[in-house]
Amino acid sequence: MPRHTIDDLDLPAGKRARLYRLLYQHGPGHGLGMFLPIDQGLEHGPRDFFPNPAAADPDFQLRLAEEANFSAVAFQIGIAEKYMNRYAGRVPLILKLNGKTEIPSDAEALSPVNASVEDAVKLGADAVGYTLYVGSPAQDRDFEQLRRVREDANRLGMPLVVWSYPRGKYVNEKGGQLTSWAIEYAARVAMELGADVVKVNLPENQPETVKQTPAPYNAQNYDEEEAVRRVVEAAGKTLVLVSGGSRVDEESVIQKARLSVRCGATGIIFGRNIWQRPWPEAVALTHRIQNIMLEEAGVLAAAGAR
Amino acid sequence: MPRHTIDDLDLPAGKRARLYRLLYQHGPGHGLGMFLPIDQGLEHGPRDFFPNPAAADPDFQLRLAEEANFSAVAFQIGIAEKYMNRYAGRVPLILKLNGKTEIPSDAEALSPVNASVEDAVKLGADAVGYTLYVGSPAQDRDFEQLRRVREDANRLGMPLVVWSYPRGKYVNEKGGQLTSWAIEYAARVAMELGADVVKVNLPENQPETVKQTPAPYNAQNYDEEEAVRRVVEAAGKTLVLVSGGSRVDEESVIQKARLSVRCGATGIIFGRNIWQRPWPEAVALTHRIQNIMLEEAGVLAAAGAR
Amino acid sequence: MPRHTIDDLDLPAGKRARLYRLLYQHGPGHGLGMFLPIDQGLEHGPRDFFPNPAAADPDFQLRLAEEANFSAVAFQIGIAEKYMNRYAGRVPLILKLNGKTEIPSDAEALSPVNASVEDAVKLGADAVGYTLYVGSPAQDRDFEQLRRVREDANRLGMPLVVWSYPRGKYVNEKGGQLTSWAIEYAARVAMELGADVVKVNLPENQPETVKQTPAPYNAQNYDEEEAVRRVVEAAGKTLVLVSGGSRVDEESVIQKARLSVRCGATGIIFGRNIWQRPWPEAVALTHRIQNIMLEEAGVLAAAGAR
Amino acid sequence: MPRHTIDDLDLPAGKRARLYRLLYQHGPGHGLGMFLPIDQGLEHGPRDFFPNPAAADPDFQLRLAEEANFSAVAFQIGIAEKYMNRYAGRVPLILKLNGKTEIPSDAEALSPVNASVEDAVKLGADAVGYTLYVGSPAQDRDFEQLRRVREDANRLGMPLVVWSYPRGKYVNEKGGQLTSWAIEYAARVAMELGADVVKVNLPENQPETVKQTPAPYNAQNYDEEEAVRRVVEAAGKTLVLVSGGSRVDEESVIQKARLSVRCGATGIIFGRNIWQRPWPEAVALTHRIQNIMLEEAGVLAAAGAR
Amino acid sequence: MPRHTIDDLDLPAGKRARLYRLLYQHGPGHGLGMFLPIDQGLEHGPRDFFPNPAAADPDFQLRLAEEANFSAVAFQIGIAEKYMNRYAGRVPLILKLNGKTEIPSDAEALSPVNASVEDAVKLGADAVGYTLYVGSPAQDRDFEQLRRVREDANRLGMPLVVWSYPRGKYVNEKGGQLTSWAIEYAARVAMELGADVVKVNLPENQPETVKQTPAPYNAQNYDEEEAVRRVVEAAGKTLVLVSGGSRVDEESVIQKARLSVRCGATGIIFGRNIWQRPWPEAVALTHRIQNIMLEEAGVLAAAGAR
Repeated sequence: MPRHTIDDLDLPAGKRARLYRLLYQHGPGHGLGMFLPIDQGLEHGPRDFFPNPAAADPDFQLRLAEEANFSAVAFQIGIAEKYMNRYAGRVPLILKLNGKTEIPSDAEALSPVNASVEDAVKLGADAVGYTLYVGSPAQDRDFEQLRRVREDANRLGMPLVVWSYPRGKYVNEKGGQLTSWAIEYAARVAMELGADVVKVNLPENQPETVKQTPAPYNAQNYDEEEAVRRVVEAAGKTLVLVSGGSRVDEESVIQKARLSVRCGATGIIFGRNIWQRPWPEAVALTHRIQNIMLEEAGVLAAAGAR
Repeated sequence: MPRHTIDDLDLPAGKRARLYRLLYQHGPGHGLGMFLPIDQGLEHGPRDFFPNPAAADPDFQLRLAEEANFSAVAFQIGIAEKYMNRYAGRVPLILKLNGKTEIPSDAEALSPVNASVEDAVKLGADAVGYTLYVGSPAQDRDFEQLRRVREDANRLGMPLVVWSYPRGKYVNEKGGQLTSWAIEYAARVAMELGADVVKVNLPENQPETVKQTPAPYNAQNYDEEEAVRRVVEAAGKTLVLVSGGSRVDEESVIQKARLSVRCGATGIIFGRNIWQRPWPEAVALTHRIQNIMLEEAGVLAAAGAR
Repeated sequence: MPRHTIDDLDLPAGKRARLYRLLYQHGPGHGLGMFLPIDQGLEHGPRDFFPNPAAADPDFQLRLAEEANFSAVAFQIGIAEKYMNRYAGRVPLILKLNGKTEIPSDAEALSPVNASVEDAVKLGADAVGYTLYVGSPAQDRDFEQLRRVREDANRLGMPLVVWSYPRGKYVNEKGGQLTSWAIEYAARVAMELGADVVKVNLPENQPETVKQTPAPYNAQNYDEEEAVRRVVEAAGKTLVLVSGGSRVDEESVIQKARLSVRCGATGIIFGRNIWQRPWPEAVALTHRIQNIMLEEAGVLAAAGAR
Repeated sequence: MPRHTIDDLDLPAGKRARLYRLLYQHGPGHGLGMFLPIDQGLEHGPRDFFPNPAAADPDFQLRLAEEANFSAVAFQIGIAEKYMNRYAGRVPLILKLNGKTEIPSDAEALSPVNASVEDAVKLGADAVGYTLYVGSPAQDRDFEQLRRVREDANRLGMPLVVWSYPRGKYVNEKGGQLTSWAIEYAARVAMELGADVVKVNLPENQPETVKQTPAPYNAQNYDEEEAVRRVVEAAGKTLVLVSGGSRVDEESVIQKARLSVRCGATGIIFGRNIWQRPWPEAVALTHRIQNIMLEEAGVLAAAGAR
Repeated sequence: MPRHTIDDLDLPAGKRARLYRLLYQHGPGHGLGMFLPIDQGLEHGPRDFFPNPAAADPDFQLRLAEEANFSAVAFQIGIAEKYMNRYAGRVPLILKLNGKTEIPSDAEALSPVNASVEDAVKLGADAVGYTLYVGSPAQDRDFEQLRRVREDANRLGMPLVVWSYPRGKYVNEKGGQLTSWAIEYAARVAMELGADVVKVNLPENQPETVKQTPAPYNAQNYDEEEAVRRVVEAAGKTLVLVSGGSRVDEESVIQKARLSVRCGATGIIFGRNIWQRPWPEAVALTHRIQNIMLEEAGVLAAAGAR
């Protein structure tokens, strides 16, 4: 399956220059991206820092992003203003423009905007991030928020990365957030609403959840690769980044990266699976992943038989 | 029944030039229109692409629109930005300005705006589309959204096509979305609120739904042609496009197009009934339909006895 | 009881010029007005056109307004844009700026704005109309909408006609929409919030509804003339127009017009009672009414004993 | 207890000039004020005009304000536009910027804004009035409304008079609107949010309501003077006006005015207690009250032993 | 644990100049702050003034702030406009931009904005304060409000102090407002959303509340110092101020100040614990606290063994 590149998107110069920086001049390069998010402090709270307390200090991730060569970091305005200065120019930034705590119920999820595309420009960011909760009862307000972000991003030549997540009580009634139905739908919506890049979870189709999804999804039985390819196809020309989710063992992390690239994704955005590990382990794992990505993309010869 | 034309509407030059392009310079012409929508990826999700997986790529519909000569395509900003460039000037565009997923309940339906009339101008579109949910408890916000779209469309000379659909819990209590009462009401509302063109479903009056409608509709028994004519009349001078709905057999599709034109509609807007068919079938059906439309409109001699 | 005139209102030149046109240069004149509304297509739906199907075409009412000499027509922007052009200058227009369908429940009624005072200016209208639902739980949004309309109307010298209707669940609990209490309150509110002209229903005090109204109204027993006079007084200097409501027999229509003028109203605004009748009947009735109005106002000698 | 004066407030010139007009150049003067409100037609409806039907015509109160020498009248924009012209310059105006009907439940009370500070300037008003419902579940919208009014008032040098009333379901659960706790809290809130002048009710502490208030109020037992002094103190430097409430006998009215001035209030704002009386009685009572106020303030020698 | 200073924050000149004034030129200095808030009149009502009635007059706290040398006072716009003038330049001001009464339920807490950053500039304030209710169901509106305040504060070089409090029904379900989980989360959120300074409560972990918090917090058992250090760490580079809460005995107050400074906080913001005491006691306690703070920070030699 051919991977979409920034050449496939009819991008104006500003968006193109910035995405080029992320996908060719930092990280694995060659049109691939490996991103390091730290939005968990807001989204999940400090409980995510227990496995590796050093990671509570954003400087940990920024150093890691520089030394292990990530394509960019992604976080909120407050971290950007207080921690980016010494990494400016050396570590690209995706400024996350919205976010919420996990404390209230997710039944009517909405992620309020707390920063602007102009803030991103001022901070020298190379993209903005927006979380869209596809299927939430609050989709009207969500679409309107996204519209304003998209308009500003277009006006200022800033790439728009959409964290596109099925969410809310109606998604829960239809098999939950992780079915192929829900994730493909979310990828398509992000593409139709103007995402340049979309961040998705990989499907985990369980028999009991699949049968709650709308026809004909409720009768499908995709294998792992097929499921991932379908998500990438659902996003159309929008470039796809695969989320890492909660921490798993190292081989599973690597397998997820390999699978993503093999199935046409542009890259990965792994947070907890990287920075919940201690420094040397995090650096080494990052290098292994980037090598695997380049191998799968045919840039590097494979180190051995798979 | 005489068909309204753009001469009947007191249009300013910009609206007139653009509607002329759609109704005389592309598609069947002669004041008739045949439009190809791809808003199903957002409105229904990727489940609609199962009958013809190739159609998940918007390039499929765009090629089809060019080769089979549609009056225009209709879709969201994200598709327009990423797929229209190579068809610019060759395939006219109706930029759909709002949309929603089908995941939340429709009881209080509202379709949030995700693009502007200025976006449409920038993309070289010849009309904008807006979905109005007539009868929804959210009608106050819907009317306000439509008002702003109408004002911008008037300011910029952009024709306004209203997808006018009865919807919401109160419509369900009064016989549902498909009675003559509901559809005529929707057509009238679109006209009164400023639509240049209105897209409607055809009525399907069932005895059990008809009797739930307000008097005197609950005592009527319209035949098919009468029902369609009444909808066209309810729209007044606003030009009427008939929706295709879900896929049916080829003869039913053709019959719907014939009936629409016979009863005074300006044209049809068929999506799934076209692009859920494989390429050669889709092209051939489109040609058959356009011939039938021209025949019914008295432009072509009928090929044989009906 | 003396009738208020535009001299009693401290009007700026623009409002004065426009109201003069309506009350002295068209219709019965001599400070009296007889208006023809077509907002029923939006407010009630096409069911109102069954008694006289010809009236579904707004051109019917416009011709009628011209030939039978109404003071003005009143309708929504969509009708104005598509049907007024050939009557421009010959039939004055009150552009109705808000409206809603009758499909949702009226428990929390609000009539959303769908056009602006600037639209009215652009269309050459001589007044704008706004429906205020007095007592609705949504009164906060209603007052805010009205405020913006009033400000624009003041800025542009456009007379403001308020359709002031008691409405909503709390009104229903206190005797409903037609008691003297409810209608006098509605008239007063319109005056206090800045209406130049107020359109009201006439009270219909039933013993069982009267006793649900707040003291001391619950102990009153007004005769018909007294009830009408009290409404006119409650409006203060704001000029009063009396609504026609649903169709009744011709003598009742005439009696309502006579009573209104006798009790100090500036005029009437009758829709269904006029245009639900066939053309010759509608024209003849209009002439009879205007004669009665002039008689009651002392302009014409009465044709005979009443 | 010393009475605060406009010297104690750090006022810019515009506010100072206007308050000087109200408190030194009209009404009792000497820093005292006696105001005549007519917001009852909106707040309570025409039922308040039954005791004195002449008062339904705002000209009644305006003549009274001029002849009996009130410090100012207070009413809504619609009355101001239609009735003030002939009294301009002779009777000062407090333009009331918000208001509501009493028809909906007060459980979530909010008084929507229907006019602007600029309207007040245009009408030559010397202050604006705003009703704040302290403790209402809608306090977030109320505070935001008040903020905008305060900003405009500061920008234009217009004194801000806050009608500060405890209201809503949570107030009802804590002893209701008339306890010392509720009224002192309301006075303090108005001061902290920027009122130049605050209008309050006098406390009526009943044993059964007092015990529902928060500690330590639930254990207090204030005599009448102490209760009034505490309210004046709670308002800090903000000048205090005492409301009249519903009509009571003449001696009670006079006693309320006397008590207010004795306890440090700047004045009174009595509506129904004045204009629900017939003309000669209303004029005479006003003169008696003003004399008492001046006596209590030490400006006039007391006419006799109290 | 090293204490963060304004050198650690990448501050523009305006913010730096103002924070320098607060932390080096007033109060204890040496990068430490001791602040005196009077937002209790709005937040709790006048019941807080019973222990020391003199404190109901804001002049009491302002004199105290000047004579006992506080770093700044913090209160609402209404107090600032009416009481600050004679202390201008002598007592720095943190203008509190939002606030609410305690009367409505806190289940969906939101603190509405009642003043602007421009108001703060106009008043010569050195910082603005904003209350954020972390975890409230109204977090979407809260974040949007905070965003606008942050943007204005950045534009005008005004330091932003966030009162960051866990609040609302979902917090109550998860152990309440005082667990380490809730307070650390609140500190982190304030940092990520752009606070320069954050005001927090100190944790009070009770076994029964701890076990309701999310894992792994529900299994922790922090001692007092550890709990405080963790909160300071959760705030990252954002400077931390510790709230005083309701009045406790003098030794407890001192111990709280000592503990805060020892654990890396920049200072304290004690209101009721200071001004609910009579004047000489309040002055003496303030001096004791400031000495302890300087001792703990290593600026002064400790007076004796601890």
